Amino acid sequence: MPKIVDHDERRLSIVHATWRLIAAKGFRATTMREIAKASGVANGGLFPYFRDKQELIGATFEHVFAATNERFAAVRADRVGLAALRELLLQIFPLDEERILEARIVIPFWEYAANEPGLRELHDGRLELWRSEIADDLEAAKRLGEVRDDVDVSLATDQLMAMLNGVQMLAVLTPAKATPKRLTAMLDDYLRLLG
Amino acid sequence: MPKIVDHDERRLSIVHATWRLIAAKGFRATTMREIAKASGVANGGLFPYFRDKQELIGATFEHVFAATNERFAAVRADRVGLAALRELLLQIFPLDEERILEARIVIPFWEYAANEPGLRELHDGRLELWRSEIADDLEAAKRLGEVRDDVDVSLATDQLMAMLNGVQMLAVLTPAKATPKRLTAMLDDYLRLLG
Repeated sequence: MPKIVDHDERRLSIVHATWRLIAAKGFRATTMREIAKASGVANGGLFPYFRDKQELIGATFEHVFAATNERFAAVRADRVGLAALRELLLQIFPLDEERILEARIVIPFWEYAANEPGLRELHDGRLELWRSEIADDLEAAKRLGEVRDDVDVSLATDQLMAMLNGVQMLAVLTPAKATPKRLTAMLDDYLRLLG
Repeated sequence: MPKIVDHDERRLSIVHATWRLIAAKGFRATTMREIAKASGVANGGLFPYFRDKQELIGATFEHVFAATNERFAAVRADRVGLAALRELLLQIFPLDEERILEARIVIPFWEYAANEPGLRELHDGRLELWRSEIADDLEAAKRLGEVRDDVDVSLATDQLMAMLNGVQMLAVLTPAKATPKRLTAMLDDYLRLLG
């Protein structure tokens, strides 16, 4: 008699198997059959959870996003202004093995989302959460005098959004240059420009 | 008797057909068969030019890169310092239909390059050319007094490299927010921060 497995738990184990396969060989080269095997479900057994690779990359992206936010919640404590902003960005930036793997997930997600309105909407909603956290932190930093009065919070938010997405690609494609040390220095230097 | 077609010319017409198909439906959903048909070659006729989709996306990326540099060469004139830097970035930023299509080509290229060392090397070499142009322009801007003495050229170059890549994705996935007007304002605001 098969074990009764909670639906959400099984979905999560499939997402984790997908992460491992993306780390090993990338998402494009990974088949649904391999993901089923790595998740311990029968061929065709993914279907009740994910109908196709597109659904799977969407769920995997959501999971990456949630993981980043959990890390941020854990380290934020009572930080405000630039200190809070810096912690958020350090959790998003690909600064260790786990977050570089997240970047390796984000890149194929972008490729799917470029051609799929539903995934674009999901992506947009998630990015908006970061955008509004960044803007709030910058406003607080301005009130605290950590950021110059003439800084345009909305444009600085755009600059950070562009940078935090750009470094995902750079860490995966040019790892020798986009080292953790270098990316952190880049971020701190940018925050200094605002001060 | 078949027309004798110059090898490079035929390659270029295949790359152009690939652009059109990427614009219409994305690269992942496009088959080599469709590309052959759109290029006016027989099934299997792509093989002397491109052995697989990976070679094709590599060549298409090279073509995008060259197109950007040609536009820059055409508008640069005798500009130096920030004026030259701004012209370069305006040619890279996805500010019109042509350049948004280029961004739609770059995203699947990243996905292939993430898992293919040869494409990563190609990409790295091309990005280095931009990196060194940006750094040179910033150094010149510093000498001209357009950029503050305490700006770290190397870190500012990293910031611009991250931004110029990030906006490729943002223009494709969040076009309503990453409008030409908005992206240009973001860039000008960043250059102002350096001044």
